[in-house]
Amino acid sequence: MENEIKTKVVGINVTSSVTLIALVDIRGNILAKDTLKTTDYPNVNGFVEALAEHIMLLSEANGGYQTIRSVGISAPSANFVTGCIENAGNMPWKGIIPLAAMLRDSIGLAVALGNDAHVSALGESVYGYAHGMNTFIIVTLGRKGVGSGFFAYGQPHLGADGFAGEIGHCCIDVNGRPCNCGRKGCLERYVSIQGILQTAREMLEQTDHPSLLRSAGELTIEQLKTCADHGDELAREVWNVAGTTLGISLANYATVVNPEAVILTGELLEHAKWMMAPMEKSFYDSLFHNIRSTIRLLVSPINNSDRDVLGASVLAWKVKEYSLFK
Amino acid sequence: MENEIKTKVVGINVTSSVTLIALVDIRGNILAKDTLKTTDYPNVNGFVEALAEHIMLLSEANGGYQTIRSVGISAPSANFVTGCIENAGNMPWKGIIPLAAMLRDSIGLAVALGNDAHVSALGESVYGYAHGMNTFIIVTLGRKGVGSGFFAYGQPHLGADGFAGEIGHCCIDVNGRPCNCGRKGCLERYVSIQGILQTAREMLEQTDHPSLLRSAGELTIEQLKTCADHGDELAREVWNVAGTTLGISLANYATVVNPEAVILTGELLEHAKWMMAPMEKSFYDSLFHNIRSTIRLLVSPINNSDRDVLGASVLAWKVKEYSLFK
Repeated sequence: MENEIKTKVVGINVTSSVTLIALVDIRGNILAKDTLKTTDYPNVNGFVEALAEHIMLLSEANGGYQTIRSVGISAPSANFVTGCIENAGNMPWKGIIPLAAMLRDSIGLAVALGNDAHVSALGESVYGYAHGMNTFIIVTLGRKGVGSGFFAYGQPHLGADGFAGEIGHCCIDVNGRPCNCGRKGCLERYVSIQGILQTAREMLEQTDHPSLLRSAGELTIEQLKTCADHGDELAREVWNVAGTTLGISLANYATVVNPEAVILTGELLEHAKWMMAPMEKSFYDSLFHNIRSTIRLLVSPINNSDRDVLGASVLAWKVKEYSLFK
Repeated sequence: MENEIKTKVVGINVTSSVTLIALVDIRGNILAKDTLKTTDYPNVNGFVEALAEHIMLLSEANGGYQTIRSVGISAPSANFVTGCIENAGNMPWKGIIPLAAMLRDSIGLAVALGNDAHVSALGESVYGYAHGMNTFIIVTLGRKGVGSGFFAYGQPHLGADGFAGEIGHCCIDVNGRPCNCGRKGCLERYVSIQGILQTAREMLEQTDHPSLLRSAGELTIEQLKTCADHGDELAREVWNVAGTTLGISLANYATVVNPEAVILTGELLEHAKWMMAPMEKSFYDSLFHNIRSTIRLLVSPINNSDRDVLGASVLAWKVKEYSLFK
């Protein structure tokens, strides 16, 4: 009888460069992983074929297709409600891509698709610090962008069109840096890895303060951390500015949502030691007074390489709830 | 048998100056109204006694106490979850005031208490344009402040502490105008009636542009509108600045919440004809691109004098849901 119970799901994380495929069990153990280069598939039909093939190979090597219950996909600009990737800026496929329905039809398993930020929130709610929280915010500080989602009433708040939580595209300066989205001054132009490096370049150009960064050649986020470790004042000021900017934006977000916690994730955090104290200070200084003592600012315990496939695996378990498209 | 069905509720709106008490029927008809001067009651016990007395008089004149089902109260800094007014800046009673439990014990009816902004949202969801919407934002542009609440999954999003939606205390300028809340640059210091008048005074002081406002003596919002009606360029620029500031903040709010609509209410709107076009332009210009075509920016159809007691009446009907305190 036990072999009739499907005890595994497939969690897939699609990014503009790499696609990660994982077999995950009920407790969130990642049993096996595989990768595709997203850029190898300029045509989405070829991508879906390759995904299906890799899922079959992974499942055959790990108990068989009949033990797989469902598939969850995390992708940028994806929409829970429609199961489509919609006008993703950096992806090889333009326009509206019904990825969930295409993979379902190809592989014969139920498939749910979600926005990477909302899927991260799902993962955090089951396998991270948000376990047991009804209302929380998760913010992913990445290389190019800042993603986010929040929970309301114990569920991801999708919003009317499935695009809630886009804190990275909130405007902090109408005359600010141009953003890929077509506007100016979006938060992610300042507090992503790329944004922070731009702040550093601007400070180097606009001042003549001595700095170890001046001899660094092509600037990297690792250098920016190392120089701050060595007491470089300009490097520390870059982190200080980023932390203050982020802290205020997170406080404004939390003042509107009133969550139990704001949970931070993403690649930037691996380098952001010198950003954390100014961020925390400006966050609590800027919060609405009645909620200042109750909201926690946390760094997610889930590591960045597993986060998205784990979140996608939660989506897969909840496939009946989230695959409402035809 | 029909006289056993309780067909009326009491909706109460408490403000720092006046308290409005209304008898409301199932369809939202206001059957009778009464007022108290809040400032006449420096002690909250006296206020509760007076409220109970006025409710008894109103109900005796309109079918009797036995026809009243329950009571809903809308108040600033009130908390659905605890039934208390908590540290309200402008009210005569300081600290934590368990107003709902006090009135319930005094009058023998079920009582629910809510934050004025959330209660407005409830009213809008039953008797206004938000009827049938699952996710919407309501923003009240008042004399001193800007209140707000939003719905998620067809319910007011209260947040972890019952204080969600405080867009008026989001920071738009860390070095900006001091706010009553103790911080600087809160949105309500710029787009409330008082905030807009301050912008006008600053523009008059900082420039020597000719303006009808210069001969106006003590500046009022009515004058600011009339001068703009007469083509006064400085007055129009004041409205332009307010509209642009508000539009960006509403867009950031909507980019996070992704509502079906942003619905505006409040006393400012009675005078804000010249603010509307720049507000609408900057709102749509600043929205995240994937939701730009779907979100509606609306002015509530409910008039300002009825809004709060109507919202409080909805709270009264939902008393079983919202009076969870002991």
